[in-house]
Order: sequence, then C-alpha cells, then structure tokens
Amino acid sequence: MLLEDSKRNSTWVDIYNKYTPHLVAVDSIIFGFADCELKLLIIKRDFEPGKGLWSLTGGFVGLNESMDEAANRILYDLTGLKDLYMTQLYTHGDVDRDPGARVISTSYYSLIKIQDIDTDHEMISNARWCPINELPELIFDHGKMVKMALENLRDEAHRKPIGFELLPPKFTLPQLQSLYEAIYQQTFDKRNFRKSILKMNLLDQLDEKDKENSKKGAFLYRFNEEKYKELLRQGFFFNIPV
Amino acid sequence: MLLEDSKRNSTWVDIYNKYTPHLVAVDSIIFGFADCELKLLIIKRDFEPGKGLWSLTGGFVGLNESMDEAANRILYDLTGLKDLYMTQLYTHGDVDRDPGARVISTSYYSLIKIQDIDTDHEMISNARWCPINELPELIFDHGKMVKMALENLRDEAHRKPIGFELLPPKFTLPQLQSLYEAIYQQTFDKRNFRKSILKMNLLDQLDEKDKENSKKGAFLYRFNEEKYKELLRQGFFFNIPV
Repeated sequence: MLLEDSKRNSTWVDIYNKYTPHLVAVDSIIFGFADCELKLLIIKRDFEPGKGLWSLTGGFVGLNESMDEAANRILYDLTGLKDLYMTQLYTHGDVDRDPGARVISTSYYSLIKIQDIDTDHEMISNARWCPINELPELIFDHGKMVKMALENLRDEAHRKPIGFELLPPKFTLPQLQSLYEAIYQQTFDKRNFRKSILKMNLLDQLDEKDKENSKKGAFLYRFNEEKYKELLRQGFFFNIPV
Repeated sequence: MLLEDSKRNSTWVDIYNKYTPHLVAVDSIIFGFADCELKLLIIKRDFEPGKGLWSLTGGFVGLNESMDEAANRILYDLTGLKDLYMTQLYTHGDVDRDPGARVISTSYYSLIKIQDIDTDHEMISNARWCPINELPELIFDHGKMVKMALENLRDEAHRKPIGFELLPPKFTLPQLQSLYEAIYQQTFDKRNFRKSILKMNLLDQLDEKDKENSKKGAFLYRFNEEKYKELLRQGFFFNIPV
C-alpha cells in the first residue's frame, strides 16, 4: 500500500515500510437528552465477533480520510447530522481489546440535539437511545469508553457552556436544570441554580413562554454565544457549582 | 499479518481484512524544569524526511505492544526512566501530516524530574533540553502537539497537584513558585502564593533548609500524597489561583 503511493519519496517509504501497520477505528459516543434523561445512542452489532450484542457505533479509518473526517462520516451515517459538537477523547491501543483483530480505536464523543435527527434519514433500525442509567453491557472496551466520556462531560459541563448543545435552541430554565441534574445525577436547588445561571448574563430571555408543562408557563431563553465569546476575552469563567 | 494470527477466528479476520491498515506512531512531549525554566526534550532527527531538523522523540507502535507500552518504551529508551507521570493527549490523523507516509500519531506528554536522569544511560547525544520560550521550529505537526500539551499542562497544573512531578522530592517554596511562574509565564505575589499553597495543608515542612540560594536558607517541603488522597475523598479541590 505504501509503496504504491506515488507522492512519497521511495527511500523514505523503505524506512517506514519496516514497521507493522495496524487497523485503526473510530468509536463514537453519542449523547442526547430527552425525557429529563441523558441518553446514549447504541446499536446492536450485526457481525461477529459480538454479533447481537450492544455496541457503540464505529468504523475503520480509510486510506484517504483524516481521523476527524472518519468520525464525522460515522456520525453522519447514523444520524444524518453534520457540524455537531464533537471531541476526540482517547485512543485505546491494548493488543487484545478486539477479539477479531488488533484494532487501535480512537473514541470521540458528541453532544446532539435529539430533536434535530431527521427521522426520514436512513438511521439504522437497530439503533436505540438508552438512558445512561440503564445501559446494557457493551462489547469489548466500549463500556470503558462511555465511562471516560461521562467523566469528561462532567468535568467540562460545569465550566464550559457545552450543555446547551444537548438542548433545543430555545429552552426553559427548568429544562436546563433537569439537563444538569441528568448529567451530574443529583438534584439542584431551584433558586440557587437560577441565580448562578442568570448572574453569568449569558442567556437572553425571550418574549415567548413554554406552556406545555405548567398553566402559568415558563419563559424561554436562548444561549448567547456572542456574549460568551466576548466575556471569555475579558477573562470570565463559565461556572455552575456542582 | 492478520491472517497469520492463529488466535483469531478466520471468518472474523476476513471481515477485518477488507480494511486498510495504517502505521501508528507515538510522539512524546517530555517536560522538565531546571534553571527556573520549563524545558522540552527535543532531538535532532537523523533520517529523512526532515533529517537534521528538530523533532519530538517518537516511534512506531509494534505488533505486540499496547499504545501505552510503546509510549513507555520510547520514554525509557531516551531517558532511562520508568513509571513517570504520563498522559495520553491526542491522536493526530491528518492524511498528509507526515510526508514520509500516512502515519497516525498519538501524542503523550510526561513530566520528569531532570535530575533523576541517569547520565550514564545511553541517552542519545542529539537530544537537548530546550526552554519552551526558545523552541526552534519542529518537524511536521510537532509544534502543534507541544502547544496542545502546554495548554493541557496549564489547564491542569492549577487544579491538580501535578507540578510536583517536575520538582525534586524536597523543594523550597521559592522553587515551587518559580515552577508555577515558568508554567504560567507570569509572576505571582510571594505572600499570596505561599498562603494559597500552605492553606491546602498538603505540604510537610521538613527540618532541613536549603542554603544554596540565601544565607538564611529556605525550609524544604515535601508534597504529602497520602494527605492529598484523603482530602480528595472528602471532596477537596486542589487550587492555585492563576
């Protein structure tokens, strides 16, 4: 394969060619938020080893695509969504992690707005949004990958405004609170939560109310990205006490 | 290669074998602290492409070693040190990042006590500790790797006690302060720095003084790992205001 690459200098290729190449995969940890629960998108694996077991969605990195491109392709194939919040997390390289072959796998995690998924998109029928508290056993080291992603999400969500990636563009404060309660698996005091969110001055209150959950209704808010960037430049830190 | 692996089931191997394998490397960002400066261990590359240019130390992941084992091997070969503080940082997978071949590279960064390096160890003669402010241009995307490592170090060192990995086991408070000043490239007020360090109750003051830098001498301290673990369990957070 390397020898055929005409762009490369052949002497260099000889040096590199001494080494063993490895299959490299991307595994995608996809979080969504619905019914007041943090959920993970998992699929039933349809080939061996591990056929019929639950798994993250993944795929192999191709010859002419970057790691990030592979991760985006895999996410798009499953959800029809592009330009999502995605973070590379960790590369898992234990020799026997996949019983099928030596595969080095890089995990990425994404936060998606479940309601944005185009249900007409050919999302594979064996995918399922599973609440993180009810996860079945996952194949290989996928359980460990999810655990690391959750730790990372919890480490970040209180000091960076990434939680908004999981909400619709307009949301109520009770919705935002229930998101944070789902991420941190704890209840927050309503008044303190409102206070710490609003004092950061990052939410624009809209003239609309959501009346689905109460007669009186709850005001809708929108996260102001521009204001956040401006505050960041001034040395401000996002902070929700957890 | 995969077909020869007798431990694997041959039907599985057929599925995996459809995909293109890649060379996978580890590149090692090695930080040390000396002469009041944060330094990076770099080497002069002795093969093409990029022969004679400055580079991180690195190597390819072998067939029968995990990613972490490869990272440890590379670090040991250069410094003779084992069991160091090492963190996997990021996997760089752009198609053309290495002009010699398609190489996917995972960067690891380590914090080492420069004085622990056994100078009898066969450390390659073209390695050099370079102050981070005076770094030459590095090959490929190694400059970007160093930048990410520095950002990570700065993000972590004020909220986790990792700075001690760069100091000898016994150190003075002025030494500790100059380490933090080197990491954050800013000066700290001496009284405030002492106060914020000592109030965490993580340093044991020893009965010895360091008299090298002043007539009166400065007390030596030691970081108390046990106490830190105990405080962590109690919900304490390490914090040095930067």
